[in-house]
Formats: sequence, structure tokens, C-alpha cells
Amino acid sequence: MPKPELLETFPNPYPNRDYEIHMDCPEFTSLCPLGGIETDAAELHLLEGGAPDFATIRITYTPAAACVELKSLKLYLWSFRNDGIFYERADNKILDDLAASVSPKWMRVVGDFNIRGGIKSIITAEHREPR
Amino acid sequence: MPKPELLETFPNPYPNRDYEIHMDCPEFTSLCPLGGIETDAAELHLLEGGAPDFATIRITYTPAAACVELKSLKLYLWSFRNDGIFYERADNKILDDLAASVSPKWMRVVGDFNIRGGIKSIITAEHREPR
Amino acid sequence: MPKPELLETFPNPYPNRDYEIHMDCPEFTSLCPLGGIETDAAELHLLEGGAPDFATIRITYTPAAACVELKSLKLYLWSFRNDGIFYERADNKILDDLAASVSPKWMRVVGDFNIRGGIKSIITAEHREPR
Amino acid sequence: MPKPELLETFPNPYPNRDYEIHMDCPEFTSLCPLGGIETDAAELHLLEGGAPDFATIRITYTPAAACVELKSLKLYLWSFRNDGIFYERADNKILDDLAASVSPKWMRVVGDFNIRGGIKSIITAEHREPR
Amino acid sequence: MPKPELLETFPNPYPNRDYEIHMDCPEFTSLCPLGGIETDAAELHLLEGGAPDFATIRITYTPAAACVELKSLKLYLWSFRNDGIFYERADNKILDDLAASVSPKWMRVVGDFNIRGGIKSIITAEHREPR
Amino acid sequence: MPKPELLETFPNPYPNRDYEIHMDCPEFTSLCPLGGIETDAAELHLLEGGAPDFATIRITYTPAAACVELKSLKLYLWSFRNDGIFYERADNKILDDLAASVSPKWMRVVGDFNIRGGIKSIITAEHREPR
Amino acid sequence: MPKPELLETFPNPYPNRDYEIHMDCPEFTSLCPLGGIETDAAELHLLEGGAPDFATIRITYTPAAACVELKSLKLYLWSFRNDGIFYERADNKILDDLAASVSPKWMRVVGDFNIRGGIKSIITAEHREPR
Amino acid sequence: MPKPELLETFPNPYPNRDYEIHMDCPEFTSLCPLGGIETDAAELHLLEGGAPDFATIRITYTPAAACVELKSLKLYLWSFRNDGIFYERADNKILDDLAASVSPKWMRVVGDFNIRGGIKSIITAEHREPR
Amino acid sequence: MPKPELLETFPNPYPNRDYEIHMDCPEFTSLCPLGGIETDAAELHLLEGGAPDFATIRITYTPAAACVELKSLKLYLWSFRNDGIFYERADNKILDDLAASVSPKWMRVVGDFNIRGGIKSIITAEHREPR
Amino acid sequence: MPKPELLETFPNPYPNRDYEIHMDCPEFTSLCPLGGIETDAAELHLLEGGAPDFATIRITYTPAAACVELKSLKLYLWSFRNDGIFYERADNKILDDLAASVSPKWMRVVGDFNIRGGIKSIITAEHREPR
Repeated sequence: MPKPELLETFPNPYPNRDYEIHMDCPEFTSLCPLGGIETDAAELHLLEGGAPDFATIRITYTPAAACVELKSLKLYLWSFRNDGIFYERADNKILDDLAASVSPKWMRVVGDFNIRGGIKSIITAEHREPR
Repeated sequence: MPKPELLETFPNPYPNRDYEIHMDCPEFTSLCPLGGIETDAAELHLLEGGAPDFATIRITYTPAAACVELKSLKLYLWSFRNDGIFYERADNKILDDLAASVSPKWMRVVGDFNIRGGIKSIITAEHREPR
Repeated sequence: MPKPELLETFPNPYPNRDYEIHMDCPEFTSLCPLGGIETDAAELHLLEGGAPDFATIRITYTPAAACVELKSLKLYLWSFRNDGIFYERADNKILDDLAASVSPKWMRVVGDFNIRGGIKSIITAEHREPR
Repeated sequence: MPKPELLETFPNPYPNRDYEIHMDCPEFTSLCPLGGIETDAAELHLLEGGAPDFATIRITYTPAAACVELKSLKLYLWSFRNDGIFYERADNKILDDLAASVSPKWMRVVGDFNIRGGIKSIITAEHREPR
Repeated sequence: MPKPELLETFPNPYPNRDYEIHMDCPEFTSLCPLGGIETDAAELHLLEGGAPDFATIRITYTPAAACVELKSLKLYLWSFRNDGIFYERADNKILDDLAASVSPKWMRVVGDFNIRGGIKSIITAEHREPR
Repeated sequence: MPKPELLETFPNPYPNRDYEIHMDCPEFTSLCPLGGIETDAAELHLLEGGAPDFATIRITYTPAAACVELKSLKLYLWSFRNDGIFYERADNKILDDLAASVSPKWMRVVGDFNIRGGIKSIITAEHREPR
Repeated sequence: MPKPELLETFPNPYPNRDYEIHMDCPEFTSLCPLGGIETDAAELHLLEGGAPDFATIRITYTPAAACVELKSLKLYLWSFRNDGIFYERADNKILDDLAASVSPKWMRVVGDFNIRGGIKSIITAEHREPR
Repeated sequence: MPKPELLETFPNPYPNRDYEIHMDCPEFTSLCPLGGIETDAAELHLLEGGAPDFATIRITYTPAAACVELKSLKLYLWSFRNDGIFYERADNKILDDLAASVSPKWMRVVGDFNIRGGIKSIITAEHREPR
Repeated sequence: MPKPELLETFPNPYPNRDYEIHMDCPEFTSLCPLGGIETDAAELHLLEGGAPDFATIRITYTPAAACVELKSLKLYLWSFRNDGIFYERADNKILDDLAASVSPKWMRVVGDFNIRGGIKSIITAEHREPR
Repeated sequence: MPKPELLETFPNPYPNRDYEIHMDCPEFTSLCPLGGIETDAAELHLLEGGAPDFATIRITYTPAAACVELKSLKLYLWSFRNDGIFYERADNKILDDLAASVSPKWMRVVGDFNIRGGIKSIITAEHREPR
């Protein structure tokens, strides 16, 4: 189960300057909520869970008061490993959890998912500081 | 026969945010409605259908209330396999069927067809939410 | 059903010389015999057949008395379109059918199949003239 | 736990000919047996398991009486997902399990693992039919 | 009609030395003898001939007493323009005509033909001086 | 000071089979024993040590009874960080320490050092099991 | 007119060691002896000479007692500028003139000529020290 | 004036093992002994020396009792800066000076010189331990 | 001597539409007006002219009433072959002569000259229709 | 010592048109004024000067009444060879000397210096005609 409580932050050391932080996370994996585009029921029974999905998660943001701590981000992304979740929800949830944790001035999360059923999916979502 | 009834949706998990979904489908195949630029009548008789066409279908959209379910999209695209259809109609029909299914805020479908008779064709169509 | 009877030949115009013919056929498609690594029973019912496979077939041979006629080769490869067949069988069957048709001095058929279930398969088989 | 019993085979459709089958499996994931080169005990407690490893498994073989069924191979590789295992053991175990299942004339398994602790590892092992 | 009588030679200026001459001719075009893999009868009527084929002809040889004159080679290759001819025959005929014209110590002709019916063909033939 | 005592091994899980292990370690750093090709005495005083060198260490071996444990290898390579050492000695010492630790059947270590004084150095050494 | 008398040599500074000298000369230009594959008589009348040819000359040799002086080689190659000459003769003449000038142990001259009449030509000749 | 006395060595730390050292030195510069292929007398008078040449020097060797010290190699190569010297002599002299300094088991020096007069030169020489 | 009188034109077949014509001429050669950056007086005496320059001339224009005829452009560019001319003058003169000949709506001429004296020169000039 | 008096000009042949002249000079070398980031005092004593620097100088300008003569530019750049000068001063001095010599409408000089101490430097300066 995705665990946003794993996310930790540290104070932005240069809060008076707008700068950009980019992180590529090429080892994201979760399970498919419906068993999987490429999997049938019998398979799922054997594996006690949905079919695995793989993605690269690309995060870009401008910090306000806080930055996300890198090791805690790794643990947070690992926490999707055994949960079934749609691509669209995963991408937006990562954005929401990170935005709630660090309250950035601006943040974008791109979920670049591996081919399934002959189809490649890329989900892009952005968060902006409320005025 | 293309079967739009195969398309299934699930509720957009983040309907309050405008974000983008992109899907590349490199394994689209259909038949040529006139037998084919490279095929004569005798051949068609043997095969009981038109000559095969191949394309990559590239779909990009911003969801409103619903998202297209990936497995159902795969099945829907497979349903063109044994029908004769013009490139222009195929591309626009996919756009229409998907737009009718998920009522997106915006959607673009690009049909990137393999070379036939030494000619490469790319069809691009867009749908916008009526105001 | 693969139709080797579609294969036609013409007399090798230069039978006294050993030379090499190579053909790349990137638009091969067939169906999966078990429904498909990525497909369940419900899907197959809808489509009245197995899940589609895609491959590039690469053929190389040295002709003896005959050459394969190109248009008939195209029709022969199209005849796999609606049959369920294992990769290994498809590749070897193409080799057998072609070898039976033209009795080459030497022939190799490589089947380079698209990713299925996250796995890419390449099958390579050779035929040599019996002594 | 890796489950070799998931592996299924089908009769080699062309047992009288030596030919080659190659499969690339870029979505292999397992857990680190010691917790992980980049992970400490506290992290493992949170995740109830070791740190994840990722690899591409490359399999090449010449079949004798049987071929490995592709869907069962996918399920077998998925069964490493929640087990801790050394790279060297994983690569050799895949070779052993596959060789036991299909008794190939020759087989090679390459495990190409992602960077851990700043170090990239590639393990290569071969099996030959006993004479 | 291919006109080997167009081929002219000039005396090899250095007959006592074995050296190599290589020529790439990317602008070869002929017609298909059967109308064309991609063409039906109606089209042929309009064009008063078969469908056009395109190839790069690659010639390599070691001259004996004579060299082929470049301008005459260009004219000779142009003479295939309105004749229907199989790939295999075209490649071997160019080899035969050139070999008859310059009696080389060794010569190879590769015909690298453009995609037709989704199939790419490459023909390779060699001539050696009779002993 | 390089600490070979940090190296740990685990039993080769497949000692009856000759297989190959390859590791790329792009984050090796040490100090120059003479202060550094690009550094003078005043600088060294400030840094309490020689000028830093950077290299990628590439290790390939066939294990006998033991394999090197990856985390311990990482720590061992880190132990060169504050020692002055010639390229030639570093590369050979890594080979010696690793060979003493795991007694491989065969091992090669390549040290690929960054440009210093406008000069790039690559050191390659091999170890073979004494007969 | 090619002027081999322009070639100058200097004593091989290391005559007791076999070593290799390679020179690429991408600015060779001469005129076509027959007016030019792409040129007719009227054009030639206007220009008072044949059509220009362009080539890269690649020279490799092992010196015996002498080396060719680079400036004199440049002047020698310039001396072809306003002469009509076949490709085959030009390449072999450069080899002969250079071999006569420096009496090398071994020498190869490759003439890589620009496209003319849609045809690219490459001439390769070698000289060996008579025994 | 090239100063071989600048070359310093240190004892080969692993004299009992044959291993290979490779160094790329892309910043070699010297002067042309004849003023320069691209320079006339008036220019030389202004500059009080010949025209500058530039090269990359590539050194590979297997050490016996000694290795060349990198800083001293840099200084040695700098000492060619204001001397006029032929390419062939420079390359062979570097080989001789280095071989005299470290008495290697085997050594190769490649001098890869910048274009002069439209001509690029590459000189390759090897030294082997006398038996 | 550059001969602008060689330039011929034909009527622009689509004068009502603005479109662009681009031509790359990689075989431009002329002589240096001062003998040449890389040549001294003695050399020039031998060659009865200046040192050769080489360039690619890149021409882009939008035609008004006329287009330049391609063969006449080739002859015009050949007419620079034996004249001494500065790079800047050559590039601007080609622009002036072409602009005078076809009165384009807009024209650009880029002269991309080969390295001389270790220096590469590129000259860019544009012409616009007077209002 | 840099010698701006070596710079010569010739009248701009097309003074009524604004056009651009670009020159790449990849063989610039000078000495370091402080001995060099990679050099100590003992080394400098041996070499009687600072450590060598290497750069590519890229010059772009629009001429007014005069153009710089290429051979004189080469000699001028050579005159930096044995002088110690900071990167910043060298780049700006070349700009100043060239601007004083040809009084351009606009000029830019980029000094792209080789890595020293692991650091790459690029200096860019522009001159504009005073109004």
C-alpha cells in the first residue's frame, strides 16, 4: 500500500531563491488493479496479486520551505510494489503525496510506463501552488 | 468490424486536475477497402478479404470524468483486424469512438501508416470538448 | 491457415552460379495458439480467434533450380494472418514450406517477434540440401 | 519463492532440426537477500522484505524434445518478485530450472542487473547437454 | 531492353597489377515482369508496362586487360528502365554483361532492391575468371 | 588505506559450473602519491593529502568456490579514497586483493582513469589460477 | 600534367624499424579525360577543358630508406588539377610515382571518387617491394 | 629541444605480471622542421621558429622493471613545443626515448597529426624487447 | 574568370506562390588571390596560379518570375576553378550574379570553406528584393 | 608576445551589404601566466615558461570597411604561443585586437579552452560598433 507517511523532508536551504530539482526514478513497479491487461484469472491465483507493471517516474519541482529527502522518496516509491493501482491514479497520487509533503511552488510528475498489450502509456500531471 | 462497444472506461481518479495521457499503439492492422494499392483481384479471392495495412496509432488526451481502460482499448484496436477501411476513416473513427466513450476535454489521434506503393501516410485528427 | 500452395516459383535464371537472395518481411502477423500470453478467454470469445502476434521474417537462400516468386511469397505470408501458431512452429514451417517449394542449396529463416508479456523472442532455423 | 513448477513446455514442433530460440526479459525483479547494498535494517522493517533488485534476463537455447511455453516463462520469472536472492544464484537457478524443464541441447542465461551501490553486475552462465 | 552493346571499355592502364574497382549505382530502375507485386492489370494498361522497381547496384571487380568506361556503364544501366525483369535475372545479367565486356579477374554484383509488398530483397552474385 | 579485510565472500552457489561475473564500478576515487600531476605542495598542505584521481574499475571473473559480496566490494573500493597510490599499483592491488579473497579461476581488472595533465590512462591486468 | 618530379623525400629517420605512415588527402581534383560523364561538348568548349572530378586519396606505406616530404606531396597532388585522367589511371599513377620516389617496403593507395552520373567509384591498388 | 632526461620512472609495482598500460595525450605540439607545409620564409622570420604542428600521441606498453611517471611524461611531451621535427622522427623518437627510459616488454606509439596542406598524417611504430 | 553570362533561367512555373528552392554545391573550387595561406612563392611558380581553395556553396531562394537552370549553375560555378578570389568576394559575387540573373524575392548564399592554416571559414550573405 | 601588428586587412569587397564571416581556429595555444593550474615551480624552471594551454577560438563578425586577411590571422594567433596569459585576457585581447584592426559592425570571440584541473572553461565576448 503506498505509504505517504514514509516521505520525509528537510528545510529548503535556499528558500529565498527559486530553483529546480529534477529526479528520475527508473525502477518503479506496482501491480495492475484489474489483474493486468496481459494476465488472466488463473495466473493471478498463482501469484496472489495482480500482474506487475513497470515505469520510470520523472519528478520536477521548485521547492518552497521544504525539500523531499531522497532515501525517504525511495522507500515511498518502493511501497507501491505490491499494490494494484491504475497508471493514472499512481501518477496523480505520487504528485499529491509529494505536493502535500513539501508544498512546492510548482511540481510535475511524469509516469512513463512499459509496454502492455502492445501499448505504451505516458501520464503527465502538474501541481501549482494555490494563490 | 470495429467494435466501439468493446471500449470500457473507469472514473478519472483525479477529475479536478487537467493532466495528459499519451498512448502509443504500434501494432494496429486492418485491411484495405479496395483490395489494396498493392493487390489485385485474384489475390483477394484467395484471401477472402482485402490486403493488410499496418500502422502505429498515437493517442493523447486530457480526461474529464472518465479514462479509457487499457485492456479494452487493446481489444477495440484488435477489432479492426479483419475489416476493410480507408486510412482517413480509421484514424477519425478511432478518435470518434474514443471521444464518445470518455468525453475528454481534448484528444488527438495520429495514424502513422506503413509505406504502401512507395508512399507513407500520416493522418492527424483532434477533438475538442464542445462549449 | 498457412497455404504453402500459394507459393510459386520461376526457374532460376542463372542455375550454374551460386548466389544469395535475401528478403526482409517486416509485416508478418499471426494469432496465438493458446489465446495469447496477454489474453484471457473472455477476450478470445469476443474476437473469435487468438490474440495477434507480429514479427519480421528474414529469409536468406542460395537457389538451385528455382526462385520463389515475390508476390506469391507475400500472399503466402498473409495466409498466416488468421491462424493460431507457436513462434517456433511458424518459423520452422516457413522454412519447410519455402524449402519444399524451391529446393534451395541453403536457406535460413529468422523470426523476430514483437514483445509479449514483457518478453522478446527471436527464432533462427536453417535448411541444407540433403547430400 | 521461485516456482519452477510454473514452467510449462510444449513438444518441439521440429525436433529433427537444430535451431535457436532467443528471449529478452527486461522486467525481472527480485529482492536482495542481505537487505540490500543500499539499504539498512530500519528500512527493511518498514517494507517487510529486502530491497528490490532489477535485471534484464537474456535466454538463448537450442531445443531438443521440448520448448518452454512463453506465458509460463513469464509467470515463472514473476515468481522471483518477493524473494531475496543473490545475483549469481538467480542467474544460475533460472538456467537450472529452464534446463531441467526443457532439456535443451544448449542454453545460455545472461543476467544484466541494474546499478547498486554504484556497481553494475552482469552474470553469464551456460548449460550443455550431457553426453 | 538491357543493351550490353552500350558497354564500352578502355585498356586497363595498369594490367600488371591486381587492384580493385568498386562502383555504387543507387539510381537503377526497371519494371516488374509480372506487372508488379503491388500493381494490377488496370494500372499496367495505363502505364504501357510493368510497375517500376528501384535498386542500388554495387559492382566490385579486379580488372584484367580492360576497365568499364563509366559513362557507358551509366547508359547501360539506364537501358533497363523500360523492361520487365526479375530481380534475380537483373542482378545476374548485369554480372554476365559486365564480365563479358571486361573479362575481369574477379567480379561481384549486389542488387539491393527497394521494399515491394512489404518485402526487401538483396541479390548477390560473383564471377571468377575461368582457369 | 586500502582495506582488503573489508572484502567478504559468499559460497559460489553453483561451483560445478564455469560462469562469468562482470562488474563496472564507475565511482572509484583515490589520491595521487606524488601530490598529483596537476597539484603543487601548497595545495596539498591545504588538503592534507594528495590530489584526487577518478576512475572506472571494470572487474570480470569466473568464480571457483566463492563470490565477492557486492556491498563489501563497494566498501573496499571506498577504502582507497584517502590514500595516495599510483594507477598501476591501484589496478594490480585490486586484482591481487580480489583474487586473494575469492581465488577465482580467472579474473581481469581494468582501471580506466580520468584525464590528468592532458593525459588519459587505462591499466589492464589479469590473474589466472595457478595450476 | 601530373608532375612526379615535384615529389621530394627526406631520409627515413628510423630506417632500422618497420613502421607505418598513413595520409588522407581529401582535396584531390582532376578533369575527366572524355569530357565527363555528365558533360557534353558544348560545355567543354566553354570551359576549355574536361569536367572536374573530385576524390579523397588515402595513402598508407612502410618506408625503407626514404619518406615523402608532405609539402611536396601536396604540390604533386595539385599538379593533377588541370589534366584529364581516368580514375583507374590516376590511382595507379599516384601509387607508381610515390613508390618510385620513396621505394617503400609496402604501399597502398585508395582513390575514393565523388558521385558522377549517379555512380560512386573507389579504386584500391597496392605496391610491394620486389624481392 | 626534446628532453628525454625529463622522463622519470618508478619501479613497476607488479613486475611478475604482464599487464598493459595505455595513455592518450591529445595536446602534443611541435614545430615544422622546414618552416611548415603551410608557411613561407617571411612568416618564420616573424615567429623566430617553424610553423606549429599539433597531434594526439597514443602510447601503449607492457612494463618490465619500470613504469613511466605520468607528470614527467607530460613535461617530456611539452619539451617538443619549440623544436622543429618531422612527424616520422617525432613519433619514433618518443618511442625510442620511452623505451630507453622504461625498457618495456612491448610498446607502441601512434602519432595522430592534425591536417596540414589539406593532408592528415598518422604514424605508427612499435618496439619489442630484444631477446 | 567567373562567367555570370553562363547563368540561364526558365520562367517560374508557379509565380503566384511563395516557395523555397535550396541547392547544395559541395564541389566548388577556386584559387587563392594572394597565393594562399598555405603556399609560398616558389610553389606558385611551379603551378602557374594560386593555391586551390575548396568549399561547399549553399544557395536558398524564393523565386519571383524566374528560376536558375541547374546545368547552367554548374557551369557557372565551374568557371571559378582557375581564378584567384577571396572567400568574401566569392560568396558575395555568387549572390550578386544569381540575384541579377533570377531577381528572386529573397536569396541567401553560404560559402563553407575547407580548413586552411588550421582555420575554417564560413561566409553568409543575403539579398532581399528592393521595395 | 601577442603581436596585433601582424594583423592585415583587405577592403571589404561588398561594403554595402551586411553579411557574416565565421572562423573556427582549433589550434590556439598559449602558456599559463601563473605557471599553470597543473604545474609547480620546479617544472616551470625546466621549461623556462608556463604550462601550455590549448583552445579553439571561434570568431564571428559583420565587416564594415575591412576584412581580416586569413594568413595574417593565423600568424597573429601563433604569436600567443610562448606567452603567459589568462583565458579571460586572451579571449578579450583577441576581440580587441581584431576589432581595432577591422572596425567591424559587430564581432564575437569565443575561447573554448581544454580541461585543466578537471575544469573546462569557455569565454565569450562581443564588440559592437559605437554609435
